[in-house]
Amino acid sequence: MFEAAELGRCLSKSDYREAEPELRARLLDAQRRARAAGVPVLLLITGVAGAGKGELVNRLHEWLDSRNLRTHVFWDETDEEKQRPRWWRYWRAMPAAGEIGILFGGWYAKLMDDARHARLDEDGIEGELARIRQVEQMLVDGGTLLVKFWLHLPGREQARRVEARRRDPKSHWRMAPETAREANHYDAFIDLATRVVRETDTGEAPWYLIEATDRPFRDLTVGQTLQRAIETRLSARREPTDVTVSHAPALPAAESARTTILDRVDTDLALPKPEYKRHKQTLNARLNRLGWEGFEARHPVVAVFEGWDAAGKGGTIRRLTEALDARLYTVVPIAQPSDEEAAHHYLWRFWRQLPRDGYWTLFDRSWYGRVLVERVEGLTPEPDWARAYHEINTFEEQLAEHGVTLLKFWLHITPDEQLQRFEARAETPHKQHKITAEDWRNREKWSDYEAAINEMVVRTSTEFAPWHIIPANDKRHARIEVMRIAAEAVARDVKSKRQSP
Amino acid sequence: MFEAAELGRCLSKSDYREAEPELRARLLDAQRRARAAGVPVLLLITGVAGAGKGELVNRLHEWLDSRNLRTHVFWDETDEEKQRPRWWRYWRAMPAAGEIGILFGGWYAKLMDDARHARLDEDGIEGELARIRQVEQMLVDGGTLLVKFWLHLPGREQARRVEARRRDPKSHWRMAPETAREANHYDAFIDLATRVVRETDTGEAPWYLIEATDRPFRDLTVGQTLQRAIETRLSARREPTDVTVSHAPALPAAESARTTILDRVDTDLALPKPEYKRHKQTLNARLNRLGWEGFEARHPVVAVFEGWDAAGKGGTIRRLTEALDARLYTVVPIAQPSDEEAAHHYLWRFWRQLPRDGYWTLFDRSWYGRVLVERVEGLTPEPDWARAYHEINTFEEQLAEHGVTLLKFWLHITPDEQLQRFEARAETPHKQHKITAEDWRNREKWSDYEAAINEMVVRTSTEFAPWHIIPANDKRHARIEVMRIAAEAVARDVKSKRQSP
Repeated sequence: MFEAAELGRCLSKSDYREAEPELRARLLDAQRRARAAGVPVLLLITGVAGAGKGELVNRLHEWLDSRNLRTHVFWDETDEEKQRPRWWRYWRAMPAAGEIGILFGGWYAKLMDDARHARLDEDGIEGELARIRQVEQMLVDGGTLLVKFWLHLPGREQARRVEARRRDPKSHWRMAPETAREANHYDAFIDLATRVVRETDTGEAPWYLIEATDRPFRDLTVGQTLQRAIETRLSARREPTDVTVSHAPALPAAESARTTILDRVDTDLALPKPEYKRHKQTLNARLNRLGWEGFEARHPVVAVFEGWDAAGKGGTIRRLTEALDARLYTVVPIAQPSDEEAAHHYLWRFWRQLPRDGYWTLFDRSWYGRVLVERVEGLTPEPDWARAYHEINTFEEQLAEHGVTLLKFWLHITPDEQLQRFEARAETPHKQHKITAEDWRNREKWSDYEAAINEMVVRTSTEFAPWHIIPANDKRHARIEVMRIAAEAVARDVKSKRQSP
Repeated sequence: MFEAAELGRCLSKSDYREAEPELRARLLDAQRRARAAGVPVLLLITGVAGAGKGELVNRLHEWLDSRNLRTHVFWDETDEEKQRPRWWRYWRAMPAAGEIGILFGGWYAKLMDDARHARLDEDGIEGELARIRQVEQMLVDGGTLLVKFWLHLPGREQARRVEARRRDPKSHWRMAPETAREANHYDAFIDLATRVVRETDTGEAPWYLIEATDRPFRDLTVGQTLQRAIETRLSARREPTDVTVSHAPALPAAESARTTILDRVDTDLALPKPEYKRHKQTLNARLNRLGWEGFEARHPVVAVFEGWDAAGKGGTIRRLTEALDARLYTVVPIAQPSDEEAAHHYLWRFWRQLPRDGYWTLFDRSWYGRVLVERVEGLTPEPDWARAYHEINTFEEQLAEHGVTLLKFWLHITPDEQLQRFEARAETPHKQHKITAEDWRNREKWSDYEAAINEMVVRTSTEFAPWHIIPANDKRHARIEVMRIAAEAVARDVKSKRQSP
């Protein structure tokens, strides 16, 4: 594959000088228009050591307006990064709408590095390549313009450059830490690179293979490619395309054929007060202890609370937090995104709230809004929410891989119970603020929500993050169930973590 | 002082049970109204080891709505915190408008700890107490409701509790790491605490000294005090009060008496092109090397660019960034704050952008907007901008203490030069977007801006962060001046850092 980048392509200085001013003006214009259109542009720049990635990035900073441009390097992994799922550090670096982010090496540098130092076995490499494809697809689907450059040098040229740098007492500052070390293993690197490039060269996120031997050629080609990529993107219409595959089965019209998972929930389950008190006391003590054990073992927990309006999410969360030490958890209520959040991929706001190892984050509503309210209310076009099931599974899989205990609760009540609770709220002065016109409107769409919930549970109940559907007509029953499930899951995970450090 | 918290005050269980439900309802109501009013509430909870700070915080979480409540502990200092000015970690934890933040120990825990382990000498303690007073004053002035609780126990009671915990195999989980160690030095702790409390017990941010021996008394008193603090704050009118001291000297009306610092600037300074090229080449190489030397030495740089419209801030920044490696700097343009930023103290958005050690952040406009555009355009009431000079000095002093090289440039042009540039922009198609009606309006307020700039320079040119007023009618001259000043300052600081590690 890399033969195509060893053709000796080059550009004379005078040709370069002639072409550069125009390219520069066009690039600035493209940047300005991408900003106006609110397109996030993500550049990934990687390739063989010594190919001049640093020089190229500097050139791009010279050409572009540095005020909407940010380059991210991943030289060292900080404590805060190590104590979160692996991709958290990349999500921190994602450009907002209208910004350009350059990821130096990006997720490829880490993969190459881990593979070459045997920190990843064959399955690990395969898994990471699949992960990369998924995430890139998701970013592109979410509206990011992703442009990936792979800089190549023939082996002789790399050896020559490394040697030249080694001799030049001034230039060692410019060398990224790895350059010298890596140059001795050119062939092994190319074998791996061939595979990585091939397996991640997708329709949505193609690689641009750049012959980097001649600097003027390298820089001008990258600049032009970037400019064209932005122009192409801006001129393409990005209207939501129609769904080409209907993703839900076409059910017969008969009532019996339309049974959902929710119809199977035994909403009569109830817990008498004395039993509730007894269980609660035991579970309180157990959860408190588990909180501290998890803290000591540096084990993170994420819990998601979804449910019908008035199903008791708040009260249930409160029972959990009463058991836990306040220093160990955070409750994150999900409502309107802030403008910074709205300028990013919809999962960004959840990534930024992930707990460090040892802590708990409890989400009062969550990323499932995408396939619930946004779907039912038509806030998000169908292709976008239809894709979200897979995107969410990919996200949760990453939490699981990092060892997060992920708990997902759906609090289920019947329409009658909801009505009673609404009416009770409307009558109690200090609870009136909890009930709005929107709650009544949502109620009218009960069966649409039922279908959405059913599909959500079917598609996102995974082995690493199953849904727990909690009968919640009886609050005491629901609360104890949630506490019990949380305690069991955390106890199991903390124990297994201790056994395999 | 602490005798007042050894009076044996207590509350029977039945009294507690009677009072709690009402307090709880009132607290929730106060929280809701503080949220509606957009008041940020900051609770600091500290005191002697074993007094039950953890229990108390848990109680508050039980009483309050945990969705707008976040507790922050500062057990370990992460890499990312260590590599920034000391108070960065507290600024990260500041509640937004309408939120409640509980800082466990807050800035007092660190001070007490450092003082008792001789990591701070007498001057250090004095300095930190002054810093605390300044910051608390600033937060309160900025609209934060700051409520500080100091929990006290007599020595016998502390010893008893620590012993009881030590014997109870279950309860050790609840013990904060320091408890057992600290209990052996009760008298020394109280001596230091007396001083700390006394020196930080100010009119704006008083301490509430809480007798913590009896748990029901402790919790109920804290809850009631908090509730009353919120109510008092909400019922107080917070209209900007009139300025009681005019902070600028009253100058005679004669023109000659109204000379500003800007009138002394030699705007005729210019640099011929050949000299410019020569200087630029040398400075480019020098700055590039300094960037890497600073990175190796983990030395951070913050540069602020202010100046008249069309003075050439963008072009000057660009000359600096062309010299630096793109991996080492970030350019932060300051325009409208995001909604998250607008919900915090005006300095918050700058704190969050501070570079890690080894990196540079270049601000294109900055916190000085507070005393320039916000003052001149009347966007901020006079008492607020009048206070800002001192607040800014305090902020910059903290950067200097951490070892940041702080560079502040005012790019100065004459009104005639500005007019020419505006007209040239209006005529050049690809520069038309750079000139707006607002630019023309600002121009009419030239003398108001002159007065504001003069005062800004007078009040914020400090020994640790002087202003550099750069004659910028000639762009070449201005650019070389900025590069030269930056290179000299960074070289000096990196060198002195190396010599005193």
